[in-house]
Amino acid sequence: MPPQKQAQQKLLIKGGKVVNDDLSMVADVYVEDGVVQQVGPNLNPEPSTGLIVLDATNKLVIPGGIDTHTHMEFPFMGSRSKDDFYTGTKAAIAGGTTMIIDFAIPQKGCSLTEAFDTWKSWADPKVCCDYSLHVAVTWWSNKVKEEMKHLVQNKGVNSFKMFMAYKDIYMVNDEELFAAFSCCKELGAVAQVHAENGELIAQGAKKMLAMGITGPEGHELCRPEEVEAEATQRAITIANAVNCPLYVVHVMSKSSARVISNARREGKVVYGEPIAASLGTDGTNYWNKDWAHAAAYVMGPPLRPDPSTPGFLMNLLANDDLSATGTDNCTFDTCQKALGKDDFTKIPNGVNGVEDRMSVIWEKGVYSGKMDENRFVAVTSTNAAKIFNLYPRKGRIAVGSDADIVIWDPKATRTISAKTHHQANNFNIFEGMVCHGVPVATVSRGKVVYEGGVFNVTAGEGKYVSRPPFPPYVYKRVRQREQVCQPAPVKRAPYTGVVSGISITQK
Amino acid sequence: MPPQKQAQQKLLIKGGKVVNDDLSMVADVYVEDGVVQQVGPNLNPEPSTGLIVLDATNKLVIPGGIDTHTHMEFPFMGSRSKDDFYTGTKAAIAGGTTMIIDFAIPQKGCSLTEAFDTWKSWADPKVCCDYSLHVAVTWWSNKVKEEMKHLVQNKGVNSFKMFMAYKDIYMVNDEELFAAFSCCKELGAVAQVHAENGELIAQGAKKMLAMGITGPEGHELCRPEEVEAEATQRAITIANAVNCPLYVVHVMSKSSARVISNARREGKVVYGEPIAASLGTDGTNYWNKDWAHAAAYVMGPPLRPDPSTPGFLMNLLANDDLSATGTDNCTFDTCQKALGKDDFTKIPNGVNGVEDRMSVIWEKGVYSGKMDENRFVAVTSTNAAKIFNLYPRKGRIAVGSDADIVIWDPKATRTISAKTHHQANNFNIFEGMVCHGVPVATVSRGKVVYEGGVFNVTAGEGKYVSRPPFPPYVYKRVRQREQVCQPAPVKRAPYTGVVSGISITQK
Amino acid sequence: MPPQKQAQQKLLIKGGKVVNDDLSMVADVYVEDGVVQQVGPNLNPEPSTGLIVLDATNKLVIPGGIDTHTHMEFPFMGSRSKDDFYTGTKAAIAGGTTMIIDFAIPQKGCSLTEAFDTWKSWADPKVCCDYSLHVAVTWWSNKVKEEMKHLVQNKGVNSFKMFMAYKDIYMVNDEELFAAFSCCKELGAVAQVHAENGELIAQGAKKMLAMGITGPEGHELCRPEEVEAEATQRAITIANAVNCPLYVVHVMSKSSARVISNARREGKVVYGEPIAASLGTDGTNYWNKDWAHAAAYVMGPPLRPDPSTPGFLMNLLANDDLSATGTDNCTFDTCQKALGKDDFTKIPNGVNGVEDRMSVIWEKGVYSGKMDENRFVAVTSTNAAKIFNLYPRKGRIAVGSDADIVIWDPKATRTISAKTHHQANNFNIFEGMVCHGVPVATVSRGKVVYEGGVFNVTAGEGKYVSRPPFPPYVYKRVRQREQVCQPAPVKRAPYTGVVSGISITQK
Amino acid sequence: MPPQKQAQQKLLIKGGKVVNDDLSMVADVYVEDGVVQQVGPNLNPEPSTGLIVLDATNKLVIPGGIDTHTHMEFPFMGSRSKDDFYTGTKAAIAGGTTMIIDFAIPQKGCSLTEAFDTWKSWADPKVCCDYSLHVAVTWWSNKVKEEMKHLVQNKGVNSFKMFMAYKDIYMVNDEELFAAFSCCKELGAVAQVHAENGELIAQGAKKMLAMGITGPEGHELCRPEEVEAEATQRAITIANAVNCPLYVVHVMSKSSARVISNARREGKVVYGEPIAASLGTDGTNYWNKDWAHAAAYVMGPPLRPDPSTPGFLMNLLANDDLSATGTDNCTFDTCQKALGKDDFTKIPNGVNGVEDRMSVIWEKGVYSGKMDENRFVAVTSTNAAKIFNLYPRKGRIAVGSDADIVIWDPKATRTISAKTHHQANNFNIFEGMVCHGVPVATVSRGKVVYEGGVFNVTAGEGKYVSRPPFPPYVYKRVRQREQVCQPAPVKRAPYTGVVSGISITQK
Repeated sequence: MPPQKQAQQKLLIKGGKVVNDDLSMVADVYVEDGVVQQVGPNLNPEPSTGLIVLDATNKLVIPGGIDTHTHMEFPFMGSRSKDDFYTGTKAAIAGGTTMIIDFAIPQKGCSLTEAFDTWKSWADPKVCCDYSLHVAVTWWSNKVKEEMKHLVQNKGVNSFKMFMAYKDIYMVNDEELFAAFSCCKELGAVAQVHAENGELIAQGAKKMLAMGITGPEGHELCRPEEVEAEATQRAITIANAVNCPLYVVHVMSKSSARVISNARREGKVVYGEPIAASLGTDGTNYWNKDWAHAAAYVMGPPLRPDPSTPGFLMNLLANDDLSATGTDNCTFDTCQKALGKDDFTKIPNGVNGVEDRMSVIWEKGVYSGKMDENRFVAVTSTNAAKIFNLYPRKGRIAVGSDADIVIWDPKATRTISAKTHHQANNFNIFEGMVCHGVPVATVSRGKVVYEGGVFNVTAGEGKYVSRPPFPPYVYKRVRQREQVCQPAPVKRAPYTGVVSGISITQK
Repeated sequence: MPPQKQAQQKLLIKGGKVVNDDLSMVADVYVEDGVVQQVGPNLNPEPSTGLIVLDATNKLVIPGGIDTHTHMEFPFMGSRSKDDFYTGTKAAIAGGTTMIIDFAIPQKGCSLTEAFDTWKSWADPKVCCDYSLHVAVTWWSNKVKEEMKHLVQNKGVNSFKMFMAYKDIYMVNDEELFAAFSCCKELGAVAQVHAENGELIAQGAKKMLAMGITGPEGHELCRPEEVEAEATQRAITIANAVNCPLYVVHVMSKSSARVISNARREGKVVYGEPIAASLGTDGTNYWNKDWAHAAAYVMGPPLRPDPSTPGFLMNLLANDDLSATGTDNCTFDTCQKALGKDDFTKIPNGVNGVEDRMSVIWEKGVYSGKMDENRFVAVTSTNAAKIFNLYPRKGRIAVGSDADIVIWDPKATRTISAKTHHQANNFNIFEGMVCHGVPVATVSRGKVVYEGGVFNVTAGEGKYVSRPPFPPYVYKRVRQREQVCQPAPVKRAPYTGVVSGISITQK
Repeated sequence: MPPQKQAQQKLLIKGGKVVNDDLSMVADVYVEDGVVQQVGPNLNPEPSTGLIVLDATNKLVIPGGIDTHTHMEFPFMGSRSKDDFYTGTKAAIAGGTTMIIDFAIPQKGCSLTEAFDTWKSWADPKVCCDYSLHVAVTWWSNKVKEEMKHLVQNKGVNSFKMFMAYKDIYMVNDEELFAAFSCCKELGAVAQVHAENGELIAQGAKKMLAMGITGPEGHELCRPEEVEAEATQRAITIANAVNCPLYVVHVMSKSSARVISNARREGKVVYGEPIAASLGTDGTNYWNKDWAHAAAYVMGPPLRPDPSTPGFLMNLLANDDLSATGTDNCTFDTCQKALGKDDFTKIPNGVNGVEDRMSVIWEKGVYSGKMDENRFVAVTSTNAAKIFNLYPRKGRIAVGSDADIVIWDPKATRTISAKTHHQANNFNIFEGMVCHGVPVATVSRGKVVYEGGVFNVTAGEGKYVSRPPFPPYVYKRVRQREQVCQPAPVKRAPYTGVVSGISITQK
Repeated sequence: MPPQKQAQQKLLIKGGKVVNDDLSMVADVYVEDGVVQQVGPNLNPEPSTGLIVLDATNKLVIPGGIDTHTHMEFPFMGSRSKDDFYTGTKAAIAGGTTMIIDFAIPQKGCSLTEAFDTWKSWADPKVCCDYSLHVAVTWWSNKVKEEMKHLVQNKGVNSFKMFMAYKDIYMVNDEELFAAFSCCKELGAVAQVHAENGELIAQGAKKMLAMGITGPEGHELCRPEEVEAEATQRAITIANAVNCPLYVVHVMSKSSARVISNARREGKVVYGEPIAASLGTDGTNYWNKDWAHAAAYVMGPPLRPDPSTPGFLMNLLANDDLSATGTDNCTFDTCQKALGKDDFTKIPNGVNGVEDRMSVIWEKGVYSGKMDENRFVAVTSTNAAKIFNLYPRKGRIAVGSDADIVIWDPKATRTISAKTHHQANNFNIFEGMVCHGVPVATVSRGKVVYEGGVFNVTAGEGKYVSRPPFPPYVYKRVRQREQVCQPAPVKRAPYTGVVSGISITQK
């Protein structure tokens, strides 16, 4: 009975620098029952019986990472992503991430609740850290609306994703988007979009194949970044029309990030999520001469050939133009990717990242001087917790918070490689990247689940985390606007003159 | 037989400053057979028998205006616009405009050719100056495609307009837009769009009515400028995907103009058309306490409440971020507007302008110092002629050009008023505007049709003007890109390893 | 001995919603010795002897405001600002502000240390709340450099302001700016600029007077917003060249705010400070027919005539494109303003705000739905504390923080008026503004100094607050860049060929 | 007596496509006395005695290029540029350029008129095509002002360049800029700026050398593009303050081009001049391992390492955000460059281009599909003629224009190389570029001076071309604004109350 065992565990993290998003300070952290009990200098909990002590001297003590975007064991494009909820969450904790949010995705016409239950049934027995589930809305009807309400009120779901791409499979049109956003606003959920113009992708793909472009480069060529930017702009416009907060998943391009950033300047309630892939590598890989290499980077929206993209996105992330980070972890090995060896449209879309995210962002963000350690905590953990209403239970090291904690060595380095990673894939899109910043120990709900390269975790130890509706971080402004910013009719004398039309009907 | 009469007319315009888009110079202009024969100093055509002489000393001699956007006698929203092809073109020549381009608009499912024929049958017997017809594509099928080809190849049509608004009436979706743009590109036509998100308008209108906002202000409130900007961005993205030149009709907002301007900076072949209304007045009128006043400004897209809009658009027009100007002249009197007295969605959309455009642009553009007289000619005439392949027959005073000429007094002023205008309406949206710059005489195909306030014109004297496809001004770049800017596949060894998928089907 | 008295005071704030920048929660706050001792539900401190209890039920409990920009009793332009450190800080606490940062400003050629000492000698006996001092650098020499070092190391100064305007009085040129910024970077201080192009102002003022424009409108006309934006751009460019963090005081225009916002997107370490005036009113007042009214708004840089400015700035403030807020409180009454009754260049520059800032930002920011209560705390207090290295002692309600606390009633309203305000002036630039959000009690270092309209404070009770160098919030990135982001020379074989010049000297 | 010989020459260019900036049409061109006499189909001038016929079938007939920016035989940085007015103009005609505008540059304190006379005395005996001279203002005094007036009124100068860089040598400060711009506006001249912040360059250079960076890469590192953008913004702001038209020479960066483009959108009268170098190559060359290669690209402002720069600038040039093109041709061979072999600050600044410009712009602009042949003519010739008041004498093929004509083969290709070029240098920064678009014959004032690789030209055949003040293309708007857009004082009752200041003087 692991939960009980957890409840009894006492843990003292000594001598580290505790880093929250607003402040760093040298302090000890004392944990009991999976919850932080004390943060302060020179803690000396009594009795010391059964007390586990982790020495964090010269290390950082940070809130465990929250990966806002994963697809474990996702049945997709004729295959199923290799990382399941066990290997995926194990890789997560090895990388310093202690919570993931995956997606339950029903087929068009199918029940959202059933999808939720299915995904939960896959995850519960396997997860090694806490998790939650976004649910996708892939079609629209009154039943969908009812199910959204049910999921929010009874299942702890406060976010729904709509696809603007994957025509005929997941894509919804503007009318459906409008309805879904309206429903989210009423329920207090965060609307999410995969923002790409699915029509243009469908047409572009046909064109590329007709031109004889069948390789992975065709994947990017048929959906250039303006296809992403257009959909982002459209989603923001529609969401704003119903005063619904919007969260744009996997921001992959400078164009799209600019659209989000501009909308935020205008006061729109919109959040952008870059991912490890878009922050750490780029789309020049699609032109790699080795098909397997090129195919490994295929994901949607694609990485961009403009090599200044990752730095650009990181600057915006540092500046809070972009808010939280995920990975879209959805791994397919070369044999699976090879389903599209003669036709890029059949290459299963997805890349790794759940293990790499924290190190990639540290290296490209903190080590490079673009952000400091506090902003690092914000973008890898705190902001996600705020947006999805988990804060301050998650995303902060403070009395009363869940003891999801990582001891991070900012001086150590490691080299990312498929040979050594824990993700269930034979390829790593960050292969060879030397990263400063290494997670030396990971604590999940007060238990040391990973330390010095060694796991101490059992499948199913993680828990499903309910997320209540109306996250205050997101919804306070929304509600205030609802009350205050409504137009009123002009008071006028009624028109009393003649009214005239025509009766002829045009053919 | 007016044509013969015209052919014999000899006209000498003496002593004026001839203003083309690149240069002004004092010169005489000699016209015969409706065509400019000579431009130069001290012309003295022999024999002088039958020679009509117009003294243009201290005046400007400019190419007649081309109004790119009118809707004469348009059956629309349960009514029919009051200016028919007779009163409308008469008002045009009184204002210094010698050619209009109207729109033939079939209902969904109906024949484009029949619409074209219908409109032409209305216009031919009535027009007082030259005209041409854009044709609208309001639905999609192979038949539509065939008809587009027929219209281009046999009827002198080189431009087609697609509506992104007027849901269920004229609106086409992204897939149809893609098809229509592709067809335009193949045929060498200019694609035009009415750029507003029709779905958002439909929803917004419902919302306003539900909130008790039934007056004209609701018209703007339900379709704020981001609704226009979104559609503009989408249209540009789709057009660019098929390398089709795009012409955005009636640019009404700063947001939309910015989108166009940015796209042009990136090299996209896109043109924006502000109109007299958006350059000369603004949307604060929708909040006027007098219902009839407010309703008179109702058009789609609406004028914008931001009072800096007209100056902003004029700056962009001066700078060639926007290209040509029309009016969307589609007049409804107060009795007609009153169809929507209890519900703004029923107010027939449309405003005046065909007579006012030249003076409004002179006043707000030239007199204000935003553009000079040469740019004035460019934006009121030359650019339209270039884009719609009428140049240099129209849009320039040069040997061989049609003698569509206006004598313009830049020092004189007049006050715009419904009491004195020639437009068939009881309201003028520019009422009271004092304009420097007055057309003192208008010459159409070599005949003085208007001088000193007196008309000398007969219904049907104007001619339909065919416009050949592939306007060089627009299409040279497009064709070069077609040949040069195509991606090529990466050469790779084929993948020869194992391929693996899954056979399970997700429920 | 007030400090002792303070030390003994025990205070319990019960039942309120404690609002920090990251979170709001219902909790009691217990204060002893001027410091927060406990924050949590149902506190019951023992013994209750001498315990003062404030009931905050249904109220917010927020960190006291920090006004980053005041000029109390400032000798300036032939006059002296009316609010001295007593009336000014009294007004501050009445408005919910518990700390101000004023400016010590030496004349050109004079000692910075002496200026600091002078200002401190004015302030110490009078202040009713805590305060600190920025110091201005108005000229450059080695002595100035030495004094800066001394002030940083011995006097608790970590910010220096340079003027790019006030030619011949305070203005420094680019070379001096470069030197001052370099020195700030070395010392760990924040460089501040008054960003306006002083040369253009000087010339513009001459021109306006020559045109016969002598009234307050001339003040804005001779220094339009591009004059501010230019200097802002220049300061950012120079600061970035030396990797020095920059804080732009009194951001008054959309143009300047856009420059800052764009620089932040590019990763530059720059902060913008809008003020109560620029967030709450606008420059149309300079065209007021009443001279005294118009003159009352004269400040530098001026308020802008574009009425969309305050909303624009508030949006950026909400979005963290702008960071902290001050007031530039520098009050002159009508008789003082009248020094410039015949010549706007002689109107003493300055407006009120130290009392109004919190309410104005609440009304225009929070009540309007642009930001939530947490962001309100960030921009009125927390961010200033972080930037100027006072955090978490100031800017947060947490165990160990100074008990600078305000009880804020978000439902109550009050009307700003010179008749009722505590600022020492006969005019209030926000006259008549109805503000939701009223400070019902103010606690300074644990003492209730203002409650229900009644003061309980003595001159000199406030303290000078030292600010240590190298604020981590600002300098972590700066230092990392210093270490990591340095260019390296290209390794090349030396050039070994012929070298040839010319000996002729041009005349 | 070459002029007489020219006067007698009769030339017929047959069968080509005549390309002006507004239109292309197949037509013959007949030339006599150095001037175009007829343009039209099937010309058959009589008598045909002495008629030279050039067959232009399948070729383009374009106005000769105008290079707006050269420095022939310029004494600079201890050396003198290798191309003198003979080799430089010979290279020009080989490349399709028939006019250059060079710069007469006085030392600080020296006479502008003398500099003008000196440069003219160098040029007159050597030039192979027409030329003119801009004059630099490198210091300020009443004498300078008088000389500017003299040069404008008596010497045909209508443009003056001010340097914002080259501290202590040519640099002027803001006050001097203001004075010079004011003077230009009064005289009807175009103000030009070399826009870089000279102070930052001076400091940056010191820093680089201190860091041990002595190679050519240091040249760019010490003056990154924001140094250029800042100065551009400042110059525009100052010029706008005095309503003076501004021409920014050698636009080298995306940042600076954006500044110009934005200013134009706001209605400012500003023109940007990219050059062959910035349109055809980039600053990655400074990192070349071969010192001589890297040094060959050193010019000020530098080329930019961002490889997307040339395409970006070309897009803006295509879109009229940038206006005219020059080269900054100022060639130094490797031995001269080697003056800076140990210190990049001593490398003479300058690159080639006078011969290459037309081909580079055709290749990167027209062949790439970014602009059409008409826009090519505009940016290589017509716009320069308009801005510097040479139009339509130069810049257009029309009756009455100077017969400066190039026969251009758009299908032919050539490869740029120092081995084959006519520029007097051992290096070509475009080495190896294959260019579509080859000048097959060049006609200068009606004489075929270059054909099929063979010159037929004598030193001194070119002429100095006077440029009258107040170019209408530039100044019409400026003058109108001067008359119409002036602020007026607010009418108010005078203030009659008490006035009070202080008599104390701050120490």
